[in-house]
Amino acid sequence: MRKVVFIPDSFKGTMSSAQICSIMAEEVHRFFPEAETVSVPVADGGEGSVDAFLTAMGGERRTVTVTGPYFEPMEGFYGVIDGGNTAVIEMAACAGLPLVGENKDPRRTTTFGVGELIRHAVDSGCKTVILGLGGSATNDGGTGAAAALGCVFYDETGKRFVPVGGTLCRIARIDRSETVDLLRGIKIITMCDIDNPLYGEQGAAYVFAPQKGADAAAVAELDEGLRHLAKVVARDLGKEIATLPGAGAAGGMGGGTVAFLDGELQMGIETVLDTVSFESLLQDADMVFTGEGKLDSQSIRGKVVAGVAKRAAKAGVPVVAVVGDIGDNIEPIYDMGVSAVFSINRVAVDFRFAKGRARDDLRLTMENLMRFLKRLGK
Amino acid sequence: MRKVVFIPDSFKGTMSSAQICSIMAEEVHRFFPEAETVSVPVADGGEGSVDAFLTAMGGERRTVTVTGPYFEPMEGFYGVIDGGNTAVIEMAACAGLPLVGENKDPRRTTTFGVGELIRHAVDSGCKTVILGLGGSATNDGGTGAAAALGCVFYDETGKRFVPVGGTLCRIARIDRSETVDLLRGIKIITMCDIDNPLYGEQGAAYVFAPQKGADAAAVAELDEGLRHLAKVVARDLGKEIATLPGAGAAGGMGGGTVAFLDGELQMGIETVLDTVSFESLLQDADMVFTGEGKLDSQSIRGKVVAGVAKRAAKAGVPVVAVVGDIGDNIEPIYDMGVSAVFSINRVAVDFRFAKGRARDDLRLTMENLMRFLKRLGK
Repeated sequence: MRKVVFIPDSFKGTMSSAQICSIMAEEVHRFFPEAETVSVPVADGGEGSVDAFLTAMGGERRTVTVTGPYFEPMEGFYGVIDGGNTAVIEMAACAGLPLVGENKDPRRTTTFGVGELIRHAVDSGCKTVILGLGGSATNDGGTGAAAALGCVFYDETGKRFVPVGGTLCRIARIDRSETVDLLRGIKIITMCDIDNPLYGEQGAAYVFAPQKGADAAAVAELDEGLRHLAKVVARDLGKEIATLPGAGAAGGMGGGTVAFLDGELQMGIETVLDTVSFESLLQDADMVFTGEGKLDSQSIRGKVVAGVAKRAAKAGVPVVAVVGDIGDNIEPIYDMGVSAVFSINRVAVDFRFAKGRARDDLRLTMENLMRFLKRLGK
Repeated sequence: MRKVVFIPDSFKGTMSSAQICSIMAEEVHRFFPEAETVSVPVADGGEGSVDAFLTAMGGERRTVTVTGPYFEPMEGFYGVIDGGNTAVIEMAACAGLPLVGENKDPRRTTTFGVGELIRHAVDSGCKTVILGLGGSATNDGGTGAAAALGCVFYDETGKRFVPVGGTLCRIARIDRSETVDLLRGIKIITMCDIDNPLYGEQGAAYVFAPQKGADAAAVAELDEGLRHLAKVVARDLGKEIATLPGAGAAGGMGGGTVAFLDGELQMGIETVLDTVSFESLLQDADMVFTGEGKLDSQSIRGKVVAGVAKRAAKAGVPVVAVVGDIGDNIEPIYDMGVSAVFSINRVAVDFRFAKGRARDDLRLTMENLMRFLKRLGK
């Protein structure tokens, strides 16, 4: 083997994508010392996404003073890749759940700092902003971020205010003309792997607000707020975000980026593959190794293995998925371009025990795949 | 792939060697319909060994009325392979533990029937007898079998008798001249995978008699009997079986076949490999699949995977071990010629649950190896 590409998802609860890449690369080099290896740690939009992009592509990490979830000043950060042209922002950096500790209240938290990070990136010349949703403490429908980018929200008395989850219902009118000017020529790509609509039983409040600290009454209030927001957005901005799949991501931030920032919701893996120019990495590659913690019938839709396999298949490069568990009915995954799937499980023990040995087990599985390939004269 | 050989050990508690061969062959044919496949179910000497040889080589199964463990008449059987030249006998057929049910007493049981089976085979023209030890209900040191083949045991009064475990101490003199005549030109190969000496702490009585129904007093009595037997054998037959590794197999039958029948103790897998002419099966083979329930540092010594790997390596054929669990420190197994090892475990569950899905998991593992090979253009 002369060139091998690693692009695994994280194994939830055991190994990050970067850790997996590094074990895979070590074992390939052990048996094929001359092989060129390319590691692409996969960002999922949540915490760690900026670092994943920086590891995969190189770039600069910038620290900026922004507004935290409770409007307090804090140190946020984002990454700049692609020679300064593209910013990578994870909303968790200044609106993440770990930032609020036990003080969880999605009626009062804001995404204002996320807008400030975007503004900083744009002001410094970035033409593309990749925004990772995930791990948010907020339910403000992205209104805070929009406000930081010049969008104006008026209440019924005509007064400007920055809405939060609990005050969405008070929005009487929205003017985003300043935001449109500010973001002219800027492409906002939002990494979003979920399908939930903005509101309703499957919406942001009902599905995700409880883990952000909302009780039943708060959930109902937040849901009502998002419902109201969608109505005003439709009337004032001419955008239908109510039933848009993914609008309900990150407390409605999915819908907000579409409504206020003309953002494009995209499966995270597609963003990663586009950003790293996956097709060019595939050139002359003999094999691609991908993987995820559990491969099953769910893996077909938008997940890392499927996304990688589709493109690698088009380029004619064999794809091997090295995974934690292999579920049932995985036939479609082969049709998508996965050449073969191998589980790292090597002793029959419960996950409680398997967890602690995942790295060693991954290493042994890679070792044996390399031994096999070597023996076959590959 | 044009030719593939399957020669796995059984997976203890889940699948027989024959079942594994059949699943492996199905998956190979699914992806390589033109491939020639050769299945060699591996006999371990115990119950099912005759059928394993017959499946691997073809041949005839003969039913014979012989003497059971309690000297009762019963239907025994053996197999004839190699155009009638070689007999395969499993001692479990007429001296096996399941035959005595709850009535276990290794002081009273006999291997007489085993001798009768050998005699029947020899009388019908067999020149080689493969004798599988394992699963015995006896502790007679093989004296019963020897008696059936003309060996004469005298007590102190000069009376002839057929010893059992509890009467070994009464043997005063042994005359095996008739047996020597009967077995002239006959090769007796005893499949024996254990190292235990005839008597003592690691001997037949102390290690194995308890599971055959002996209490502490009976164990001591049986051990004393075997000790006495070794002494008489040394004096009258000039053979030292006391410390011979394997002499303690099957209630001392290992030692008995050497002492009375000039048998040769051999690792079972070596017997199988010799008998099926493994080297000729390897000709033009692209790959050998072997395996066992648990591959670990124990697997190096005399077990199926190691035995297969050594010969396949010499012939230059890649060996893939598809196993249940993979233990630690298996480096030496690669040095012996195993190209790669893959576990069938594919979900992190305890063996209690893994057991029930072993067949499906083996099938999926083979499927993915075949997909992989196919994709590599093999």
